[in-house]
Amino acid sequence: MSNGTFTAIGTRPVRHDGVDKVTGRANYGADLSLPGMLHAVVVRSPHAHARIRSIDASAALKVPGVKAVVTGRDVPLIDAKLGMGEGAMDLKDMSDNLLAREKALYHGHAVAAVAATTIGAAREAAALVRVEYEVLEPVLSIERAMAPDAPILHETMRTHARPAVDDKGPTNVAGRMELRRGDVEAGFAEADVVIERVFHTPTSHQGYIEPHACVARVNEDGRVSIWTSTQGPFLVRDATAMMLGLDAANVKVTPSEIGGGFGGKIPVYLEPLAVVLARQTQRPVKMVMTRDEVFRATGPTSATTIRMKMGARKDGTIVAASASLYYEAGAYRGSPSGAGAMCALAPYSIPNFFIEAYDVVVNKPKVAAYRAPGSPMAALATESLIDEIGRTLGLDQVAIRLKNAVKEGDLAPYGPPYGRIGFREVLEQVQQSAHWNSPKAAGTGRGLACGFWFNAGMSSSATVTLGADGSAAVVTGNPDIGGTRAAQALMVAEELGIPVERVRPSVADTDTAGFTEITAGSRTCYATGMAVVEASRHVREQLRARAAKMWNVPVEQTRWEHGRVVPVEAAEGRQPLTVTEIASKLAKTGGPIIGSASVNPPMAGPAFAAHICDLAVDRETGTTRVVRYTAVQDVGKAIHPSYVEGQMQGGASQGIGWALNEEYIYDAGGVMQNAGFLDYRMPVASDLPMIDTILVEVPTPGHPYGVRGVGEVPIVPPLAAVANAMADATGVRFTDLPLSPPRVLDALAQQA
Amino acid sequence: MSNGTFTAIGTRPVRHDGVDKVTGRANYGADLSLPGMLHAVVVRSPHAHARIRSIDASAALKVPGVKAVVTGRDVPLIDAKLGMGEGAMDLKDMSDNLLAREKALYHGHAVAAVAATTIGAAREAAALVRVEYEVLEPVLSIERAMAPDAPILHETMRTHARPAVDDKGPTNVAGRMELRRGDVEAGFAEADVVIERVFHTPTSHQGYIEPHACVARVNEDGRVSIWTSTQGPFLVRDATAMMLGLDAANVKVTPSEIGGGFGGKIPVYLEPLAVVLARQTQRPVKMVMTRDEVFRATGPTSATTIRMKMGARKDGTIVAASASLYYEAGAYRGSPSGAGAMCALAPYSIPNFFIEAYDVVVNKPKVAAYRAPGSPMAALATESLIDEIGRTLGLDQVAIRLKNAVKEGDLAPYGPPYGRIGFREVLEQVQQSAHWNSPKAAGTGRGLACGFWFNAGMSSSATVTLGADGSAAVVTGNPDIGGTRAAQALMVAEELGIPVERVRPSVADTDTAGFTEITAGSRTCYATGMAVVEASRHVREQLRARAAKMWNVPVEQTRWEHGRVVPVEAAEGRQPLTVTEIASKLAKTGGPIIGSASVNPPMAGPAFAAHICDLAVDRETGTTRVVRYTAVQDVGKAIHPSYVEGQMQGGASQGIGWALNEEYIYDAGGVMQNAGFLDYRMPVASDLPMIDTILVEVPTPGHPYGVRGVGEVPIVPPLAAVANAMADATGVRFTDLPLSPPRVLDALAQQA
Repeated sequence: MSNGTFTAIGTRPVRHDGVDKVTGRANYGADLSLPGMLHAVVVRSPHAHARIRSIDASAALKVPGVKAVVTGRDVPLIDAKLGMGEGAMDLKDMSDNLLAREKALYHGHAVAAVAATTIGAAREAAALVRVEYEVLEPVLSIERAMAPDAPILHETMRTHARPAVDDKGPTNVAGRMELRRGDVEAGFAEADVVIERVFHTPTSHQGYIEPHACVARVNEDGRVSIWTSTQGPFLVRDATAMMLGLDAANVKVTPSEIGGGFGGKIPVYLEPLAVVLARQTQRPVKMVMTRDEVFRATGPTSATTIRMKMGARKDGTIVAASASLYYEAGAYRGSPSGAGAMCALAPYSIPNFFIEAYDVVVNKPKVAAYRAPGSPMAALATESLIDEIGRTLGLDQVAIRLKNAVKEGDLAPYGPPYGRIGFREVLEQVQQSAHWNSPKAAGTGRGLACGFWFNAGMSSSATVTLGADGSAAVVTGNPDIGGTRAAQALMVAEELGIPVERVRPSVADTDTAGFTEITAGSRTCYATGMAVVEASRHVREQLRARAAKMWNVPVEQTRWEHGRVVPVEAAEGRQPLTVTEIASKLAKTGGPIIGSASVNPPMAGPAFAAHICDLAVDRETGTTRVVRYTAVQDVGKAIHPSYVEGQMQGGASQGIGWALNEEYIYDAGGVMQNAGFLDYRMPVASDLPMIDTILVEVPTPGHPYGVRGVGEVPIVPPLAAVANAMADATGVRFTDLPLSPPRVLDALAQQA
Repeated sequence: MSNGTFTAIGTRPVRHDGVDKVTGRANYGADLSLPGMLHAVVVRSPHAHARIRSIDASAALKVPGVKAVVTGRDVPLIDAKLGMGEGAMDLKDMSDNLLAREKALYHGHAVAAVAATTIGAAREAAALVRVEYEVLEPVLSIERAMAPDAPILHETMRTHARPAVDDKGPTNVAGRMELRRGDVEAGFAEADVVIERVFHTPTSHQGYIEPHACVARVNEDGRVSIWTSTQGPFLVRDATAMMLGLDAANVKVTPSEIGGGFGGKIPVYLEPLAVVLARQTQRPVKMVMTRDEVFRATGPTSATTIRMKMGARKDGTIVAASASLYYEAGAYRGSPSGAGAMCALAPYSIPNFFIEAYDVVVNKPKVAAYRAPGSPMAALATESLIDEIGRTLGLDQVAIRLKNAVKEGDLAPYGPPYGRIGFREVLEQVQQSAHWNSPKAAGTGRGLACGFWFNAGMSSSATVTLGADGSAAVVTGNPDIGGTRAAQALMVAEELGIPVERVRPSVADTDTAGFTEITAGSRTCYATGMAVVEASRHVREQLRARAAKMWNVPVEQTRWEHGRVVPVEAAEGRQPLTVTEIASKLAKTGGPIIGSASVNPPMAGPAFAAHICDLAVDRETGTTRVVRYTAVQDVGKAIHPSYVEGQMQGGASQGIGWALNEEYIYDAGGVMQNAGFLDYRMPVASDLPMIDTILVEVPTPGHPYGVRGVGEVPIVPPLAAVANAMADATGVRFTDLPLSPPRVLDALAQQA
């Protein structure tokens, strides 16, 4: 695609943080050490569901080098929420997850933490912390959780329901919500074909390479410093302060480089424990999770059960759909079932639908966000049914989707009308793509699936400074996960008309950056980018004022044009001035220039994607190999196309892994059996083909460049794309993931 | 004094960086270590003046662990200046000082640097670097330097002179300037008393506790990171980049905490060497000076010879003065002789004067700035002569000074008229002070002396961010030497009406802070403070806009009043809103708030001080003990009075040390004999009484709070105050410093 009127935006410079990262020089969460630092480890429950009768740390405290043991008694539970509305975090739950108080709610739930001068002493002591448990029956599935005789995880739990339901006493159903439109029964009555299926997806983990890690220090005056690998330094600051009853103004959080997060590094697991231990010992305290702990005690995404029914006319018009979504929340309320319900039918304009979504607690780790949380599982159901309807009716898979695709002005299933969106453009690109138009290789199947994600806006701040040499620096508060430093530098370069190599992007700590929400929700390039653009324009205003001073004219007699200040009226001695020319005179025209801006866009441009998957199944071993894969996506405007492509490739890869192999395997007692990368089978480079990408650019109105968030939607289609390709390859309609060799062999055996 | 209408300004909170500093937790220049780091040491000339014939590093390179040796050959000399006008730094000289090329110009001049895996290996190898010298006669005094047959340090040196002089060929006189007014001869003819004396002051060092130290890293892509103890991170960045031919946009400098500077941590001594070694070795390189190196190879202040003549009428009116100032520059041009000339008579309105000032190179380390550079030596001459005239005429020492004191509208000797200044108010406070009105203790003498310093403005930037909890953070680029973080926090607290404890001040690196000149010239609280106030007001503007949004009125319908936004017209639902109330709604009213500002005030309010010194001399040992000391100063407005008092006490202490004991003692070959704190005798706490302070607050017009710089002028009066007290105590007029026991005993013996 053409780069339009842009000069920097849309180019592909080497990322500014690249050399540090590829040489191993970048500092991640575990890379900081402080003089006198202690090492702390967490004592975790060996039971998935158990009442804690007593904790005896006396033996542990006798281990040489041990300086402190903390338990739930050291951190009073607070009843508070962080943030507003639906997105608010329940800090009481987060705190109880941090350290179990009354009950251990999953295998691996923290019950105590031990700080010692060496990691060895800390581990030795942790093994000596004696916890007396009353073991309870674990609740390990949605079915069991919702059974009338199910053990109850939280005696105080009532269902948060919209519409409201009568208080039925203790329950494991944390929430229920509904969406509806039209008359579903009448709709199904109109349909020529109606298909209903039940889908199951397993618990799967984000699989970030870097485990959670932090160092905390507490000064004698109570000031707290935390270094941590997080998606949200301000969130860590505020959540830690609130959970511990500190003034957030006394807490400084410095984000390290982050080795992946995908939503999983939003919750707070270690930092308050490290602060409490540091406060007790007056020593810095470091905590680093093992991979085993990351699997057992941080938030994967929900396992789900989805029953969906869809009806269509012979021409492919979908006339009705109904769905019941059940999402595991893990040990505390808060699965993305609501998001799943809102996303499930979002790409299609369906006159009659009913969706209900349940948030169900079970004795597994509390789920965390995972890239477009809740949407991929819902899309598996929707896109599998459309695929099946298309096959049943003999319709082209692109055509049936185009017939039903939402367009500007259509109401989203969750309420408001869509603005300018690019779903039809995405489908048209699929239709024209080399991949879609190529013949399938012998023995392969091909599947198509689409996906939707909202994308987020939220609060962001940025500062842009200009040097006398005409170079610039930009400072924000978002840990750089997907190349946002490079994107921000490109925006400054674009706005100021200077080379991107001369823009220095920095991620600052919470005392230095303006308040900025988490790096998540595909919001960083969008919302923080808007702040960067605004801050750059604040610099431009000042450049105009300086040029006006140099020409001795009112500022209104200047205008900005292609990286220069230009006089409105040409006159003697008024040649257009570049940024570098104005910068070289800063000291004489009023001093340095610094620009700043903050934004809080209420909405962002939604993202749509369509993926094409070709795969081959080895009928002897049941092994499935993706042989060709193309991701097509409306990205609004690609600031740095390589990193947009990287997001699309990364999301597709994670989705393919989820579809084919990844799953938490539990024993009957609720103990995860595969808590390591040898047994939890994520795809590695050799497992996948190059993921091809097609970028569609339908700009988001209201954003200066039309950016859409791009990081999440690429994980939405792959589950269904793989399942649909499997149906094409084998004739078997798989509804349960993962499509691992044993399940595939079983299905093929039944088929035979 | 009353705090006027201020709430935060003028209070004395504990400094924000205090706990880290008193617990030893703060990180100074030598506290950073990086993985794989090398240690580098400098090979220094054993001769004060010598031509370098050859350097052979082959033996050094064979020492196990040695990775690189650099000499002048590795760093081409550039012909460039950093900055503009008089204050510009000559980077060619700075570079030649960094590593001698043709000649070693002082004992300790760097000729090579060695990097090795351990400091031991580096030292061993440094001793093996073979340098062949042709030893030249060293020039060790102004007299010798200006003698017709003197050896010439720089064959290319010509005198920078105003008025211009004919080119007389090679010279050691780097510069000469004149100031004049009226008719000096006619003035002296009018005088009833004329006194002329010649004064000598020795080379003395700032004596900062922390030696120079840095770590440099060079990435594979050429990006450079430097951590260093400096007064000017942006200066280190720009000077290093220019000397090494790098793009400053690729250099990031992070200032460490700084253990004192007083002007001596403005020049660049180590950083470019560390960068060159890091580039050659592809390893981080650390350099830390020893105390010996600090004395021998960093910039002390000038030794001086000042001949001054002053004439007055019987009533004390000074009618004429003439002075010849000779300041040693050390090995390269750039003594503060010009500043000395401008300050010498600045406190007094004298109708006829002539001053000439010489900048003279000698074979000693290049001088650096030292607190009010050049002014204390000049004040020694001026204030000694006024003291002697006062005694001769039988006039009160305050009265004679008040009679001649400059006031608003008087022309400064260097040109412009004074604005609002507080010298008379200072003298009136002396007159009313308990100290001045107390009887002298038996056996003690009392001296009074005054002093002047310009104070600087220059470029500064600041960012202020507001949190949703109503707390704020302020970010600047000035290393915090004298409590500027606390002062900046007070300014933000004042502007926003929030507690100072809830303001978090940070010193940021050059990629994060807006461009800001050095922490020097008493400019930080003044100019950077102005930027902080402006940035806070930028926040206030936004707070008004948010309040307007909350009230649904135009912003013009709001005003700021005592830390709140108040509706211009009272109405239902429009109660005044505090910052905290508005902050709690930020997410709903448009997102976070960030304010920024930069300033470049052309001038600052000049500072005047008067010190009273009581001392006792032990006639047997020659030991002098200051028994009472009061510093009175016009501080404009004391933001944090304790730290203003601390500056006054620190400056007075340094001045007393300079007056009584401090001096570089050289042997005939130009080798310093006392390069350590045991032999270079700085006063310690037990040597001094508590320094009393009286703060006079005559606001500087144009500054939002009327701040004047306060850090430098307190070192100006002590030399003369001590000498005048000595004259009072002993009847001997001392004109040569220091007043060390041998010199005092000699004088007393001659008197007897």
